Amino acid sequence: MKKLSENTTDLLQEIKTEAAELPQNKRRDFMLNGLKLTAGTALATAVGKVVAGQENLPPNVPTWQKSLGRGVVSVPYGQPSKHEANLIRRTVEWLTADKIASISMSPLHKMKGIITPSGLHFERYHGGVPEVNPDDHRIMINGMVDRPLLLTMDELMSFPSESHIHFLECPANGGMEWRGAQMEALQFTHGMLSGSEWTGVKLSTILQEAGIKPGAKWVLAEGADAAGMTRSIPLDKALDDTLVVFAQNGEMLRPEQGYPVRLFTPGWEGNTSVKWLRRLEVGDMPWAQREETSKYTDLLADGKARKHSFVQEVNSVITSPCPENPIKRRGLLQLEGLAWSGHGKVKRVDVSLDGGVSWQTARLKGLVLSKSLTRFGMEINWQGEPLLLQSRAVDETGYVQPTLSQLREVRGTNSIYHKNSIHTWQVQTDGAVNNVQLG
Amino acid sequence: MKKLSENTTDLLQEIKTEAAELPQNKRRDFMLNGLKLTAGTALATAVGKVVAGQENLPPNVPTWQKSLGRGVVSVPYGQPSKHEANLIRRTVEWLTADKIASISMSPLHKMKGIITPSGLHFERYHGGVPEVNPDDHRIMINGMVDRPLLLTMDELMSFPSESHIHFLECPANGGMEWRGAQMEALQFTHGMLSGSEWTGVKLSTILQEAGIKPGAKWVLAEGADAAGMTRSIPLDKALDDTLVVFAQNGEMLRPEQGYPVRLFTPGWEGNTSVKWLRRLEVGDMPWAQREETSKYTDLLADGKARKHSFVQEVNSVITSPCPENPIKRRGLLQLEGLAWSGHGKVKRVDVSLDGGVSWQTARLKGLVLSKSLTRFGMEINWQGEPLLLQSRAVDETGYVQPTLSQLREVRGTNSIYHKNSIHTWQVQTDGAVNNVQLG
Repeated sequence: MKKLSENTTDLLQEIKTEAAELPQNKRRDFMLNGLKLTAGTALATAVGKVVAGQENLPPNVPTWQKSLGRGVVSVPYGQPSKHEANLIRRTVEWLTADKIASISMSPLHKMKGIITPSGLHFERYHGGVPEVNPDDHRIMINGMVDRPLLLTMDELMSFPSESHIHFLECPANGGMEWRGAQMEALQFTHGMLSGSEWTGVKLSTILQEAGIKPGAKWVLAEGADAAGMTRSIPLDKALDDTLVVFAQNGEMLRPEQGYPVRLFTPGWEGNTSVKWLRRLEVGDMPWAQREETSKYTDLLADGKARKHSFVQEVNSVITSPCPENPIKRRGLLQLEGLAWSGHGKVKRVDVSLDGGVSWQTARLKGLVLSKSLTRFGMEINWQGEPLLLQSRAVDETGYVQPTLSQLREVRGTNSIYHKNSIHTWQVQTDGAVNNVQLG
Repeated sequence: MKKLSENTTDLLQEIKTEAAELPQNKRRDFMLNGLKLTAGTALATAVGKVVAGQENLPPNVPTWQKSLGRGVVSVPYGQPSKHEANLIRRTVEWLTADKIASISMSPLHKMKGIITPSGLHFERYHGGVPEVNPDDHRIMINGMVDRPLLLTMDELMSFPSESHIHFLECPANGGMEWRGAQMEALQFTHGMLSGSEWTGVKLSTILQEAGIKPGAKWVLAEGADAAGMTRSIPLDKALDDTLVVFAQNGEMLRPEQGYPVRLFTPGWEGNTSVKWLRRLEVGDMPWAQREETSKYTDLLADGKARKHSFVQEVNSVITSPCPENPIKRRGLLQLEGLAWSGHGKVKRVDVSLDGGVSWQTARLKGLVLSKSLTRFGMEINWQGEPLLLQSRAVDETGYVQPTLSQLREVRGTNSIYHKNSIHTWQVQTDGAVNNVQLG
């Protein structure tokens, strides 16, 4: 940053002239600064820089301060600044055959904290976003229950509700890289990941109302989209922390996130949090529906499927620097990243500047919540040397994020799901950042 | 809710016919249900209700499931469902002379959890929303500092940042009611209140970089809006938890919230969190600027001003039932509300159904964070009797939310600021809810 030079000139008269142009209410403060000038304080220099006209800096009055801005409720539902128009969800054109059964990714490189604005939450669906009318929508609870239920949204929302901050991640996140494709953007390597405050009714509350019959072990969740997205959930999970969610980040769910109601299985692969939820059937075995057999099964090296693969295991990535956030100058630099685990809280994140040869422990920043995005940060002093940046997260169960070769040893290279291996960014001497695969 | 009747009819053939019309991938599951029908399970009834055609209920296929929905990134920055179009910020036309120096309020009656979507965050400004270009924006730090600074946004964001969830409240929240005006909506009685995850640099970090001169006691924060909104902040607060904030709920600030940068003074009245921040001057006494003398001063009964009145003291309100959320049916009912304190965490919330004669302790729901919105809830069994609903919050300092008469005794009725007294909703026998003032 710029430290103002100590060369002071007497600019009092110029300041007085400029002050005369200011509205009455601003003049007093401005003149106070002007008077201080005569005392030769450091302020004089700052004002001098400005009045000299080299840049449109305070206390020069910028254009936007010279006229009234727009009034309240001119945008009744607010939108981002036009200067942030580049901050949007993006898709990879070759990834899927069409955009109806496809995925878009969150711009993680620009995101802060642990909440994703709902407008930037990644999208994944198999038959497009249905236009559900909440007044006509019903949720059926049937199967091995004592009292089958048909709930309106109003009835659902009359149960006690809870709010929890959790991440949601598609198990295909990073999947393009199992066999070596290099996506040159954080948004495409890890952007099938978002975090929200979710509000809903515990599924256990609803199942208790319906009455679970003896012998029940699974729950089938079916969506009201054109794909009829359907997943089998073990009853243990259904009765643990699974929610029937209607709100996200304080308002009703967005259409892409299942409006008006979705299942939410904290820490589990995103597709089990079935959107546009229309039916929950209780049964005694998994259903082996299309989307849990042809898709969302990890194909191992021997051709067998890993059964089941629900949990999004511990993972982390450095979000700055990254390909979209190259290093712009030498000196102190705030390295930042995200870590998350479907098993619980992130316990520790280590960072390596040399491709995993040596590690330092990063600082966990802000709230550390179970099954939530967790920020980490570290200050480094960069003097133009090449770096191989890596992060390695450990969760409260002791699970340590594996290297890519460790993961491939166990899982082979057939799968496109659950790639949670240590990610490497290569920093070049000019500060540019590339995606590279290290063992 | 509806418990399906036990009258079962044999609908297997009709179900088979309907199943034949379904896509191949859905048929298997559907027929599985059909087969179960012959076993005479409770499911049969549910399906029977549906096939009988009385309502468009599962497993009948609703309209929106019969065709493909819209594809990914068809809305690159997502928006709420069109069915939620009524959920917007609103203003009270008579409250201010124009909409440029005015306020809009958050629809608290529909909000869930502790995060307000940025699009619904209340608005308050004195010269309209300026259209600031972040590339041209500068933040000056001057006055009693060793090294005056001029920071670009890029430079500001290169300092270490933090993220915290905090409420923000205008001290005029509820101010219309000091003398007895009755606003018949929660959005208007308490809607100058929102909660967000804020990300920024600690002001102490920046002041440390500038170097604070001996004798400094105050910091002046000045905005780059047409009003040049300006407030004096004690140095103690500046060095405590005050942030220079650039992001809200994961993305850059919204224009109405100070894009690209604002001050944030957790727990203090909203206007001290100066938006479109352009200058921070360090000094040895408060400046007594226009907006902290003509406005934002509590005028006491004897005509003197309360000096200073920064903290938003403990407050709470029941958000359901409320005028916008009347009680729709007798029986079990989830009462919900929000509590918050500028002094720290909410410790307890009591609820009265009889206008303060008797109290029960409510359940605090979800995260209980310092200087943050906190949800509370309680289940009540309503059988049509009139109620006088009140909530009374206590914070971790032991401060108990006062009654209106207790507050008026200390502060008189001249003020329009800092009305944190216990609020009363009157529930009528038909479930309608009115705003009433009780002592």
